[in-house]
Amino acid sequence: MTTVREAAFELFRRHGMTTIFGNPGSTELPMLAAFPEDFRYVLGLQEAVAVGMADGFAQASGKVTHVNLHTAPGVGNGVGAIFTARANKAPLLVTAGQQARRLITMQANLTNRDAVEVPKPYVKWSHEPPRAADVPFALAQAVHHATLPPAGPAFVSIPMDDWAAEVEPVDFSRQIARSTGGRARPGAAEIAELAARLRSAERPVFVAGPEIDASGGWDAAIELVERQRLPVWASPATGGHRIGFPENHRAFRGVLPPAVGPLGELLAEHDLVLVAGSSVFPYYPNIPGDLLAEGTELIAITSDPDEAARAPMGDAIVANVALTLQALVEELSEHPYREPPTPREPAERPEDGDPLSPGAVHATLAAMFPADGIVVLESPSSTPALRNQLRLSRPGSYYFSASGGLGFGLSAALGVQLAQPDRQVVCVLGEGSAQYAITAFWTAAAYAIPVKFLVLRNNEYSILKWFSTLENLSGAPGLELPGLDVAATAQSYGVPSATVSSRDQLQGALADALAREGPRLVQVDVAPGMALA
Amino acid sequence: MTTVREAAFELFRRHGMTTIFGNPGSTELPMLAAFPEDFRYVLGLQEAVAVGMADGFAQASGKVTHVNLHTAPGVGNGVGAIFTARANKAPLLVTAGQQARRLITMQANLTNRDAVEVPKPYVKWSHEPPRAADVPFALAQAVHHATLPPAGPAFVSIPMDDWAAEVEPVDFSRQIARSTGGRARPGAAEIAELAARLRSAERPVFVAGPEIDASGGWDAAIELVERQRLPVWASPATGGHRIGFPENHRAFRGVLPPAVGPLGELLAEHDLVLVAGSSVFPYYPNIPGDLLAEGTELIAITSDPDEAARAPMGDAIVANVALTLQALVEELSEHPYREPPTPREPAERPEDGDPLSPGAVHATLAAMFPADGIVVLESPSSTPALRNQLRLSRPGSYYFSASGGLGFGLSAALGVQLAQPDRQVVCVLGEGSAQYAITAFWTAAAYAIPVKFLVLRNNEYSILKWFSTLENLSGAPGLELPGLDVAATAQSYGVPSATVSSRDQLQGALADALAREGPRLVQVDVAPGMALA
Repeated sequence: MTTVREAAFELFRRHGMTTIFGNPGSTELPMLAAFPEDFRYVLGLQEAVAVGMADGFAQASGKVTHVNLHTAPGVGNGVGAIFTARANKAPLLVTAGQQARRLITMQANLTNRDAVEVPKPYVKWSHEPPRAADVPFALAQAVHHATLPPAGPAFVSIPMDDWAAEVEPVDFSRQIARSTGGRARPGAAEIAELAARLRSAERPVFVAGPEIDASGGWDAAIELVERQRLPVWASPATGGHRIGFPENHRAFRGVLPPAVGPLGELLAEHDLVLVAGSSVFPYYPNIPGDLLAEGTELIAITSDPDEAARAPMGDAIVANVALTLQALVEELSEHPYREPPTPREPAERPEDGDPLSPGAVHATLAAMFPADGIVVLESPSSTPALRNQLRLSRPGSYYFSASGGLGFGLSAALGVQLAQPDRQVVCVLGEGSAQYAITAFWTAAAYAIPVKFLVLRNNEYSILKWFSTLENLSGAPGLELPGLDVAATAQSYGVPSATVSSRDQLQGALADALAREGPRLVQVDVAPGMALA
Repeated sequence: MTTVREAAFELFRRHGMTTIFGNPGSTELPMLAAFPEDFRYVLGLQEAVAVGMADGFAQASGKVTHVNLHTAPGVGNGVGAIFTARANKAPLLVTAGQQARRLITMQANLTNRDAVEVPKPYVKWSHEPPRAADVPFALAQAVHHATLPPAGPAFVSIPMDDWAAEVEPVDFSRQIARSTGGRARPGAAEIAELAARLRSAERPVFVAGPEIDASGGWDAAIELVERQRLPVWASPATGGHRIGFPENHRAFRGVLPPAVGPLGELLAEHDLVLVAGSSVFPYYPNIPGDLLAEGTELIAITSDPDEAARAPMGDAIVANVALTLQALVEELSEHPYREPPTPREPAERPEDGDPLSPGAVHATLAAMFPADGIVVLESPSSTPALRNQLRLSRPGSYYFSASGGLGFGLSAALGVQLAQPDRQVVCVLGEGSAQYAITAFWTAAAYAIPVKFLVLRNNEYSILKWFSTLENLSGAPGLELPGLDVAATAQSYGVPSATVSSRDQLQGALADALAREGPRLVQVDVAPGMALA
């Protein structure tokens, strides 16, 4: 006989899901007991951290990743991070224990009442099997839902007494043997039409979105841009969970502003905007204006039907972004007469100042950043400065919360580092955003995950003060953050930490952190306010 | 003209809701800007903390309490704590900002997609007004929903551009002037029948639940029990967010076990079980058996129709618990012949041991516990020991997470202390459970909230190991917690902290903490394992 538990672990093996992130409770013990030796469990001390780690791992490994939560309160604590994973298109299998079947109807303690409803707005599929024997089938379906485009989280609630039940051997074998694929390329006619529009445009522009990176489309994007001599903008940073184009490339212009009016104006000189792998567009804040200038057309390539449907302007093609870009490259030769764009200036090095500006901090980081390094970023008031100073230019080098939710950065950095052990992860945080997942420092120390943390401390929610000014608002409470000391807190969890203020100190501390094994943290005091460069 | 914002704050004033808990984002700035001087904002650094603080404040003040969260990711981070607030029957107004109306349909960044669905399984009412002018009306409705029995959280999503809009003055005046009441007493015939069943029972028993405390029913419960000479059990600790009966009373027997078989056996000697203010019953774990012995009848008094409907045995009366007990007291005189129950033994003082047992720690705390002190408890493996050693005996002296969710204790303690500034709050935590809301230490320090924290450290999730043994499971990962140092972490947030191991040290450190102003923390190393006494 094969038990549900045996079948489930066989399914996990079949999909390479041998790393499980989680925070356990009693309802999860029947799954976790006698944990197989070929599996690894990574403990987070709060559920948002467990989900965030899994999100980073899934994105950086490109593989569906399993995170296991504790019935209703555990899933509840994870909903914000699940929302971010959905925005990040991270393929996650989210499972949660549930009360024993005999105690659910009376809603005994720890019953996950309406279990499938809780994460539903943010998962692609949500299910609680009506019979124990169906659990492996439900898990298999969730894996397929999570990975089929657009990737995202899928949820299964599992009553705790189901694990010892028997499955139907033949059904189960068929269920776990299935593979599904959704990397689709547009038809020849669609590609020909798209190529013709691009070829005949007078002043086309390319907007590179996160899905280029997730689909493995960097080379095709570069080739297309060079052949067609297109200037390139990155999609707005607000919704950009990854970087889709080398930001030191001679065709690269910068990152699009995330508001309707300014973005429309900036693109007004172009007659055709080709957007690859981004929603159109992740606007924030609300600065009205023309979505696009009269005479500007837009075409978006996305694997996400929802992004295609909800865009307020332009046409859309739903297909795999990398395959579509490759098809365009095959269809298009060197453009006969367009001038290649003039390269932009190198980043200016901001003056050091006292305290240092965030730009000066990022310039210092840029000067010593490992060639193959990865940034996981959650420092809202210095996002533009980091993008400008680092100009990351290799695939898979940048991860960010596309939802706007905080807590992703610190936890995802651990997952990214576990998935990419040969590349150095540098996690850049504000002292305020670090708080949403602060216990992840314990996991970093306990599992010796060698992420280097750089924390910018300015004693306030700078981004909110900046928005206040933008919206002509003042006098809001809760925007000051006196007395936070992330270095001391990280140290309390076992991550060796230093606090610095001058550029020399910062250089020394970063060099030291990068040279040593294991996790390290450098906290640097910076000037308050928004840092645009 | 009256703006939505002015109307909303007038509504908040009218209901005494001048303390707002929250974690702000840009979508909340239009509400928070020009914050009125007669309001107080209490900042939590993560949303679970903000909701937990509001839960404690609402329960300890008995008043509807406002917690303000940041659109989708903020609400998402708070869902676990909202689930706990629902289980605790805490009257909460939960509000969240939302994208500007013009940007919602395109799902621009920070749009709370399906906003009303996110917290829905766990709130009593969830709404996003279709017009700006309806926001004050929606807030008023939510306040009524939150406070009408059974109390609980209600949610309103508010687009950020609504605050400056105008309301209809007459409608608005009528909306904020409304009061609603739901404290209902059963009809005379129902009371007479209930009294008759109790009078004529041979061996009745009284089960005291949390709603006795919440409804103000202690005096009536004591009077009823004494007149009718009833032995008293507390409802199972698992679902007991409050204590409903003095645990040093001569009629008090102890806390009911939280599992079907043992509970049914324990009550088998009784022919009538009168349950006041508890669900029947918050069972966990799953130990099968007879729900009740043959010949045992059960009647539950609850203000919650859901609790009445879903109980697996017995009759139920839906009404205010305090009013129903008072009505029974009026109907019933001294019982003519029943013997009063024999008082149980005082708590045995556990041997000190090295490390100390949790029971020894709680005995030490009991010896110096302030007469009017309040315990907020989240130390799962020592809950029974604390109840046994402290035997709390005043109303409003105990708060606990009825959902089984963690993170409540540390954050709720701050809210309870703010609501009850003249009583000393002692927050008793495990070092594992402290992690779910660890940033609350910053709020304690920043607002100088004088909670005294007692943290029991045993380097493991003891309750899970105990459940594993109970369920004959072994080999689960993630149950060890090496290297946590809550004292160091709390200190990093500005809470003066000490770590002790012997009884003398503990006594000294607790005395010192209780004597000083502001928050203080004592961490004590204890023996691993479940502590039943």
